[in-house]
Amino acid sequence: MKKSLLLLTALSNIAFANEGMWMPQQLPEIATQLKAAGLKLDPATLTKLTEFPMGAIVSLGGCSASFVSPQGLVVTNHHCVYNSVAHNSTPERNLLENGFLAKTLAEELPASPGSRIFVTSEVRNVSDKVISADVAKLSGKKRVDAMEKNEKAIVAECEKDAGYRCNVAAYYGGLEFYLIKQLEIKDVRLVHAPPSGVGKFGGDTDNWMWPRHTGDYGYYRAYVSKDGKSADYSKDNVPYVPKHFLRLAKEGVKDGDFVMVTGYPGRTNRHRLPSEVAYTFDWNYPAYVKASGEQLAIIARETKDSEDKKLKYAGQVAGINNYYKNRQGMLDSYAGSDFLVRKQKEHADLKAWVNADAARKKAYAADIEQVEKLIAERDAQSRRDFLLSYSSPRLLTTARSLYRLANESTKPDAERKSGYQVRDLPRFKAGVASVERSYDETVDKALALNFLSKYVAQPAADHNTNFDAALGLKAGMKEADIKALLDTLYAGSKLGDKAERSAWLERKPADFKTSSDSFIKAAVAMYDESLKREAREEELGGKIQQAYANYMKAHIAFMNSKGQAVYPDANSTLRVTFGKVAGRATGADGTSWKPFTTLNGIVAKATGTGEFNAPKAELDAIKAKDFGKYYEPSLKSVPVNFLATLDITGGNSGSAALNANGELVGLAFDGTLDSIISDWDFNDENTRSIQLDLRYMLWEMKHVDHADNLLKEMNAE
Amino acid sequence: MKKSLLLLTALSNIAFANEGMWMPQQLPEIATQLKAAGLKLDPATLTKLTEFPMGAIVSLGGCSASFVSPQGLVVTNHHCVYNSVAHNSTPERNLLENGFLAKTLAEELPASPGSRIFVTSEVRNVSDKVISADVAKLSGKKRVDAMEKNEKAIVAECEKDAGYRCNVAAYYGGLEFYLIKQLEIKDVRLVHAPPSGVGKFGGDTDNWMWPRHTGDYGYYRAYVSKDGKSADYSKDNVPYVPKHFLRLAKEGVKDGDFVMVTGYPGRTNRHRLPSEVAYTFDWNYPAYVKASGEQLAIIARETKDSEDKKLKYAGQVAGINNYYKNRQGMLDSYAGSDFLVRKQKEHADLKAWVNADAARKKAYAADIEQVEKLIAERDAQSRRDFLLSYSSPRLLTTARSLYRLANESTKPDAERKSGYQVRDLPRFKAGVASVERSYDETVDKALALNFLSKYVAQPAADHNTNFDAALGLKAGMKEADIKALLDTLYAGSKLGDKAERSAWLERKPADFKTSSDSFIKAAVAMYDESLKREAREEELGGKIQQAYANYMKAHIAFMNSKGQAVYPDANSTLRVTFGKVAGRATGADGTSWKPFTTLNGIVAKATGTGEFNAPKAELDAIKAKDFGKYYEPSLKSVPVNFLATLDITGGNSGSAALNANGELVGLAFDGTLDSIISDWDFNDENTRSIQLDLRYMLWEMKHVDHADNLLKEMNAE
Repeated sequence: MKKSLLLLTALSNIAFANEGMWMPQQLPEIATQLKAAGLKLDPATLTKLTEFPMGAIVSLGGCSASFVSPQGLVVTNHHCVYNSVAHNSTPERNLLENGFLAKTLAEELPASPGSRIFVTSEVRNVSDKVISADVAKLSGKKRVDAMEKNEKAIVAECEKDAGYRCNVAAYYGGLEFYLIKQLEIKDVRLVHAPPSGVGKFGGDTDNWMWPRHTGDYGYYRAYVSKDGKSADYSKDNVPYVPKHFLRLAKEGVKDGDFVMVTGYPGRTNRHRLPSEVAYTFDWNYPAYVKASGEQLAIIARETKDSEDKKLKYAGQVAGINNYYKNRQGMLDSYAGSDFLVRKQKEHADLKAWVNADAARKKAYAADIEQVEKLIAERDAQSRRDFLLSYSSPRLLTTARSLYRLANESTKPDAERKSGYQVRDLPRFKAGVASVERSYDETVDKALALNFLSKYVAQPAADHNTNFDAALGLKAGMKEADIKALLDTLYAGSKLGDKAERSAWLERKPADFKTSSDSFIKAAVAMYDESLKREAREEELGGKIQQAYANYMKAHIAFMNSKGQAVYPDANSTLRVTFGKVAGRATGADGTSWKPFTTLNGIVAKATGTGEFNAPKAELDAIKAKDFGKYYEPSLKSVPVNFLATLDITGGNSGSAALNANGELVGLAFDGTLDSIISDWDFNDENTRSIQLDLRYMLWEMKHVDHADNLLKEMNAE
Repeated sequence: MKKSLLLLTALSNIAFANEGMWMPQQLPEIATQLKAAGLKLDPATLTKLTEFPMGAIVSLGGCSASFVSPQGLVVTNHHCVYNSVAHNSTPERNLLENGFLAKTLAEELPASPGSRIFVTSEVRNVSDKVISADVAKLSGKKRVDAMEKNEKAIVAECEKDAGYRCNVAAYYGGLEFYLIKQLEIKDVRLVHAPPSGVGKFGGDTDNWMWPRHTGDYGYYRAYVSKDGKSADYSKDNVPYVPKHFLRLAKEGVKDGDFVMVTGYPGRTNRHRLPSEVAYTFDWNYPAYVKASGEQLAIIARETKDSEDKKLKYAGQVAGINNYYKNRQGMLDSYAGSDFLVRKQKEHADLKAWVNADAARKKAYAADIEQVEKLIAERDAQSRRDFLLSYSSPRLLTTARSLYRLANESTKPDAERKSGYQVRDLPRFKAGVASVERSYDETVDKALALNFLSKYVAQPAADHNTNFDAALGLKAGMKEADIKALLDTLYAGSKLGDKAERSAWLERKPADFKTSSDSFIKAAVAMYDESLKREAREEELGGKIQQAYANYMKAHIAFMNSKGQAVYPDANSTLRVTFGKVAGRATGADGTSWKPFTTLNGIVAKATGTGEFNAPKAELDAIKAKDFGKYYEPSLKSVPVNFLATLDITGGNSGSAALNANGELVGLAFDGTLDSIISDWDFNDENTRSIQLDLRYMLWEMKHVDHADNLLKEMNAE
């Protein structure tokens, strides 16, 4: 049954032509649409992960990228190589500001620690292995535990192939499971990045905005051992020879041209229940925006006199700001939409369809009713816990993780909780070691005080009595009381010291139990109850998985009955989306959007400083009309960024935009603010992805940065 | 011959459909075009200044306006009533910030001193009286003096009609002259202005920009004596009953609709020689932009620690900024255009046409050659004098005016230089009295030092020896020397004292000659030579007028020979321009412009502070969707501003935008930055005027400010 869902070939109506993050193996299902949209390649070739062009598409873990030469050269977004540029920058040699170009392999620099290039080699349906016959009989926590056990076994078996990273990804809300096997390239080197005045031109001001003029590109190179295996950094390593690499299009795209993007979109919520939409938009996101605003104000206040503190919190501030703008953008779109009403109608239609047939009613009706109840229960709990997550001192969270690790480490590896297994330890230890890079006690305490005060003021029913007892919180406490409590807690812990903190990585549960460290004591005090709580959540989670999967099965059957294929929500696995280059009838009030921006806009926006600090060499080249072969007569300039109707989200950053022949024409790097709600509710009229135009990248490399070695390597001279 | 030029009716081809600031009496010439564009009124009715709708159109001197009720209610732009709102504002009752609404006649406030409403009652061709038979025989300064004498006589005769202001305006660069007779209403009262957060929404940031969301409207009322005559302010005065007033359109305009604007455009330069274009854009405007930048930097530096000084210079800073942006905008447009080449070709075509016929060659060829030579001579002189105008201390300029007045006052009034006659004295005296409102010695000295240093560094040939001698400037002086000289000059004058300065208004030339005041002494020392210089300039001016008039005659004949009517450059007299509501294919890079903005854009731009401080009451009404009958379904909101292809310039501010039936549909208030060069070179594709949409004004008055009394008076309920 599951397979048949994915192999249906007669599905000809897609609700929205541009919507869809398709699994490569689904493409034959929508071959007619792909051809009609202009694809010249056989859709079947796109299903073969080790053939052209999919063999050239890689993941950076959080970003997407592509091989563009037979020597393992990888192109992605500037913001995806940003940390590696920053990592190699010094005040004397500011690569962020000035850009970086390795003229030879020897000049290439190690990427930031932990950088990886993942080459997907296999995607296999393991639904029957995860939900095996015996698991199918289980429910609640037992079901969750058994599924986790099966998944661990599948992963362990897969990772016997050295140098590969495997994981099991859930699709359609837990209806299907696929094993993703990826070659994990660990020796990643920085090859080229333009100055931030190009790669990050427009900064936060232009983030999620059009018109856009960002040269958001950068280059890595994948290295492997001499025998072609994944290996840690070594000067003896050699460039990886990919099975395939993308060819650069000789002709740029035009308005209306077919384009597709292949990459690793992170997360969407298109298949959610109406109640989940209501919870998210009517309560969770507004609460998030409010709490984020408070966090930003407190961090600003507490760091304003210290450059050091500002730097420590710069990353968090950027992250909070990013999501703040994101969530607020979605709320703005939601406020003017009929999304919830439509969702409710769709759900009512589904239920009517299910109830109209005895067999369908028997198969689905109970689970649909059940899932709505269970989701409501989960949402009510997360609403109660909302302030709690903001209230915990950072080092208490660390203490709880350390104590959990000590306890899990007493078990055989296969039985440990995921996240605490041997394979997880390097990342875990690095996290514990690096706390102070983003932590300051004064700031942390101010944040905890703010949210604890609000938490304490909540009705008793919304309190976590275990948490209250461990910290000594009591109803009716005033802000001054809570402050005094926090002072005592922070003063009573040595976890702020890196050596002290790391020492706990090796200690036994008994050591924790006898510790007098205030945060360790609180962690121990909370442990038993938190395990019980986790078990309750897993019990609920198991029930939800079971009911949700069947609800999704009903949903897919219903859509198929209407001739519509259903793609799964994004889950950081390889997807294909297709559409066309297109402007938009409605931009900012009083404007429309054209599909291309040009070099003229860079000159218009350039201020010589801050977010709009276009390099002088670039401005000089524009002024001198030194456009070379990248000049587009219809635009009277070189195209910089372009809009397309592609369905992308976070994680697609760096994705190759390909033309009808599968040739590289650009790099996806952003959406627009009023498109963000498409993560929930795809709006065909407004949703546009923003791509770097290949011609701008090549013009910049040729006429400004003189990266002739790379142009030659990519056969782009 | 002159008359026939204006009465040609067979001229059917206009180079650009939207270009043209037509004199009302020219409209029958272009009746075919007007009808084709959609005008439903008979064009002939527009030629009658005392009929509908022209009888409703008035000038405020620098702005345009219209009567909109039988009780003398006048609507214009917010920025045209701005000074009157500021004049009536106090820290306790901040009308600028809060807006103002008189609910009854008794609550209306006197407009700022000097405010006038001019109702044009007659426009008469007096070319033959200015260039009378005897004048036609003269040349050079003699010609200029004789023309001025004739003009003064015409004006004096006209102004015998008490309450009227008359002046003779030159058209087509001095080819034709018209007497403009206007009823001068002196009792002007402020009736209504929205808060600055509406009337000036967007501030300098949005000035000359689209998309635009400015509620740029305000209301005056004209008052006259009980017997209906022009009179100074008196509480016994009564509202003026205009011959006609505009009716408000019941339907708003749509994309593509015919619109026309009637008003008083200030100055354009469409009929200039190629050499004037080159001088202006290749030298004068760049020099202006550079000098303005220096002025702004110096004023900012010298006033930064004093609110008082900042306030004194706020007006000048706004003015410099305005022109700085204007000139820079024109230079940007010029840089990317073929304007000069086209102008040169047009001029070459004209000369070829003239030379192709013996009679034409005889009539025009010599003057065309002559005018090019004379203009080059004048431009070379103004280039030499450029820094001089920036170098003079403010009080030296005042001293020179005062001494000139003393000398002119020794002559009979009719023989005095224009500007120093009895009729000019009130304005002259007010100017002398109000110096300190915009003057600070430290700032003035810093400005003089900056420009004098550059002036002194120029080659000897570019110096004014008279100026050098009077101030004691010597070649090779260093900045420190100049500073010492300025210190002595400023310390040696009492003209900074208001009483002292005003006392000189009554003194005789002999008093000046014996004064020890440093600036008075310098003014006396410069006087004889400056009169000679003025005489040389007038000699040149007389020659130019003579040659230029004949060159324009050739130009008009040439255009007429191609079937094209020629409108004169703007000269602050009543004109009509017509076009249509239209967006634009090209906006900011990557965008197009739609013809309308809406209330949505106000919400998007509102920051709650500064330039984007939309009032809470307005935002609340938008949020509540309290749109009433002003809702436009196609926009899903209320239209705020709209673009049109109208040919307007400075002075048109406040002009009524009329539909095909002559009904009010909006108020013109701005152009867009890349349209400004249209003052020289009308670009049909890019030039758009920005209008306030009537519906926004009425919505704001009805749903936000509750100006029901005025809506009733305008029959707009």
